[in-house]
Amino acid sequence: MRVELLTVGDELLLGDTVNGNAAWLGRRLADHGVEVTRSVVVGDETDVIVEAVTSALGRADAVITTGGLGPTYDDLTRDALAKAAGVALVRDPALERRLRERSAASGRGLQPMAMRMAEVPEGAGLLHNSAGTAPGLRVELPGGVAYALPGVPFEMRTIMDEVVLPELAGIAGLPAVARRTLRTAGLWESVVATRLAEVEAMDGIRLAYLPDPAEVKIRITAAGPDAPGRLATAGTRVRELLGPAVYGTDDETLDRVVHRLLAERGAGVAVAESLTGGLIGAELTAMPGSSATYAGGIVSYATELKARLLGVPEDLLAEHGAVHPDVAAAMAAGVRDRLGAAYGLSVTGVAGPEPQDGRPVGTVYIGLAGPGNLRTVAEPRLPVPGSGPEIRAVIRRMTVVHALDLLRRTLLGLGPVDGDGDARAGREECG
Amino acid sequence: MRVELLTVGDELLLGDTVNGNAAWLGRRLADHGVEVTRSVVVGDETDVIVEAVTSALGRADAVITTGGLGPTYDDLTRDALAKAAGVALVRDPALERRLRERSAASGRGLQPMAMRMAEVPEGAGLLHNSAGTAPGLRVELPGGVAYALPGVPFEMRTIMDEVVLPELAGIAGLPAVARRTLRTAGLWESVVATRLAEVEAMDGIRLAYLPDPAEVKIRITAAGPDAPGRLATAGTRVRELLGPAVYGTDDETLDRVVHRLLAERGAGVAVAESLTGGLIGAELTAMPGSSATYAGGIVSYATELKARLLGVPEDLLAEHGAVHPDVAAAMAAGVRDRLGAAYGLSVTGVAGPEPQDGRPVGTVYIGLAGPGNLRTVAEPRLPVPGSGPEIRAVIRRMTVVHALDLLRRTLLGLGPVDGDGDARAGREECG
Repeated sequence: MRVELLTVGDELLLGDTVNGNAAWLGRRLADHGVEVTRSVVVGDETDVIVEAVTSALGRADAVITTGGLGPTYDDLTRDALAKAAGVALVRDPALERRLRERSAASGRGLQPMAMRMAEVPEGAGLLHNSAGTAPGLRVELPGGVAYALPGVPFEMRTIMDEVVLPELAGIAGLPAVARRTLRTAGLWESVVATRLAEVEAMDGIRLAYLPDPAEVKIRITAAGPDAPGRLATAGTRVRELLGPAVYGTDDETLDRVVHRLLAERGAGVAVAESLTGGLIGAELTAMPGSSATYAGGIVSYATELKARLLGVPEDLLAEHGAVHPDVAAAMAAGVRDRLGAAYGLSVTGVAGPEPQDGRPVGTVYIGLAGPGNLRTVAEPRLPVPGSGPEIRAVIRRMTVVHALDLLRRTLLGLGPVDGDGDARAGREECG
Repeated sequence: MRVELLTVGDELLLGDTVNGNAAWLGRRLADHGVEVTRSVVVGDETDVIVEAVTSALGRADAVITTGGLGPTYDDLTRDALAKAAGVALVRDPALERRLRERSAASGRGLQPMAMRMAEVPEGAGLLHNSAGTAPGLRVELPGGVAYALPGVPFEMRTIMDEVVLPELAGIAGLPAVARRTLRTAGLWESVVATRLAEVEAMDGIRLAYLPDPAEVKIRITAAGPDAPGRLATAGTRVRELLGPAVYGTDDETLDRVVHRLLAERGAGVAVAESLTGGLIGAELTAMPGSSATYAGGIVSYATELKARLLGVPEDLLAEHGAVHPDVAAAMAAGVRDRLGAAYGLSVTGVAGPEPQDGRPVGTVYIGLAGPGNLRTVAEPRLPVPGSGPEIRAVIRRMTVVHALDLLRRTLLGLGPVDGDGDARAGREECG
């Protein structure tokens, strides 16, 4: 079964919105063994939407549209589907009643344009929306079926999971392919690809590399007879070839791995941040239940706060500035002691775009203080991405990954980065 | 001039990567008056890429591709463009030399597959890549011109800005449309749309609404004669109709506005975070130079840290738990005093997905302590988005926006949220 995605909205063509809906849908469908073969974005124009739906169904069995089902004048997907099916838009009495009830319950009064959301192409099926007002639509067209979902992400996801996916999975039957993603930190993409050449050559195995700042995710796809068995063999070989740079599988993000390793040891971490401004804490609190292994942190952005809040010696700061390995070490010990955690993790560095205290952009020190006398400072060699304004975001993101990965390696007993051959290779090569 | 975008990569169809390149390109082209009329994603298959390029040039004057120019076997854009043009791939001697030089300089040795990056379709123009190894390509095809750019964002952006945009803008001439985005915080999309109905009806004016958690951006497009004048008139009317909910224009994000207002007053802010875990600090350090008006912060995620690090009375925490207006007020005053800033901003609340201390998901208190006796606590009514795992990210994001907006309003002398009619409306309606 082949499915295409069609996202509707000028804001996507103009780049005001990133197409997160298409990414979510692609992932969800792949996980259910349904193949997305193309993804198209068009603007808010009825005829263009009609053409895009029709041509998608010339290639695929179904098209899933998102966007254009709201209450405003630029919401035209309903009109386009009616036109593609050669039917009229009719007002659905049950939807009209529901809109009036929700409006009365909210006490806000019915917005004049809201009633557009009660109109549906004649004969269309309604896909129940338990998360919002506008339902999705199922419209049978000559080439196949069109599912129209709202653009609001949590409404789209709810209808997809509750209605559309069960229906599609039922039609498509069992998946003929098996997929897994292995996640690595600290290796360059080209190094990963070279090391995995023999896996790439395995029968029925396909690899894709998904690089992020300081991370490479490797998606392994196995096809053909005994796809799960082939996948397991390939996965084992990838782990052997990459060693402890592989930190997790599929949705097992680095923060989740760190939380799990801390929980297994009955330990918690506190974080002292400078150039990241709170990003490490934000990452460590993304997961529900993270308070079991993350206590809190101190963002000592101004240099004098490193002394005042974390006890970094003032003469050290005066002599070397804030970006120095000894400052990172003192920050880590300071936050550990002041917050009473087993581990203290710290970062100080230059996010750019300008150098600081005579240190070039991309200079980063990561400190870790742990039980006993554990003290580590790592200096990842960050590849500085050009010279544009995006440097800052990329360097901050790479710093978050390297900091969490240093904690992970230490918890796994891989030792400080300097003492570990694979990690040192990672440092020289890390991207 | 009409341009289509073609993004190549299985990882995008599978949803492992969000299509940030297409968003950036759409924005950049729109800012230069070039209209993107369609954006397509296809997988790593030569024939599919050939068909997509050809059909794009059947509709538009140019197609810009990203991705598929790297060194691995799944990088097929070069092959596809050669096939579409009916020419062979040839090795470019200058590119080969550059690859060998870069490899020697890095000391890493030439990866076996890297030499693929020296191959180009015969007759293609090379687009200089000052940020990386693989150049972009310009290939003239029967229907128009194809520009092929790498998928690595900073390389793609560099080639676009340095080579492709000047070329396209020169061909397209001056823009016939004028655009501006007004940014609002604290209003629902449907309320914004209803209030702006008269602007929607203005001659030659088109509005698009771009909702984000707790924000709505309004993109105003003026077309036809005197587009800049029409745009100015419409923009003024939008500001009149929405009042101080409009906080900025175009790229003027809320954190930038807050930094500017603080700088004008010679003041700084310190932040005490709980449910956001560091996101507010991360937002306030996204901009270069933010240390002038942001000192740092304390992430008191564990309840006992609110007492220990911020001086929140222990009996208050024992009686009401961590999610309480008086706790927010004490956190704000505590972080202000301990970090020595003019303003202290705090958040405490329930991000979900489970209730906490008997408070439902979405309960959030924002505290602000300022010069003199300024003390404010706001309780934004956050619409809880369904019940899925995405709740947590959305509520955290809404909390960041409401916190920064409370600081903005206070700095502008709009007073505490309760005393301001428009702000109160915003609270009742905020999304």
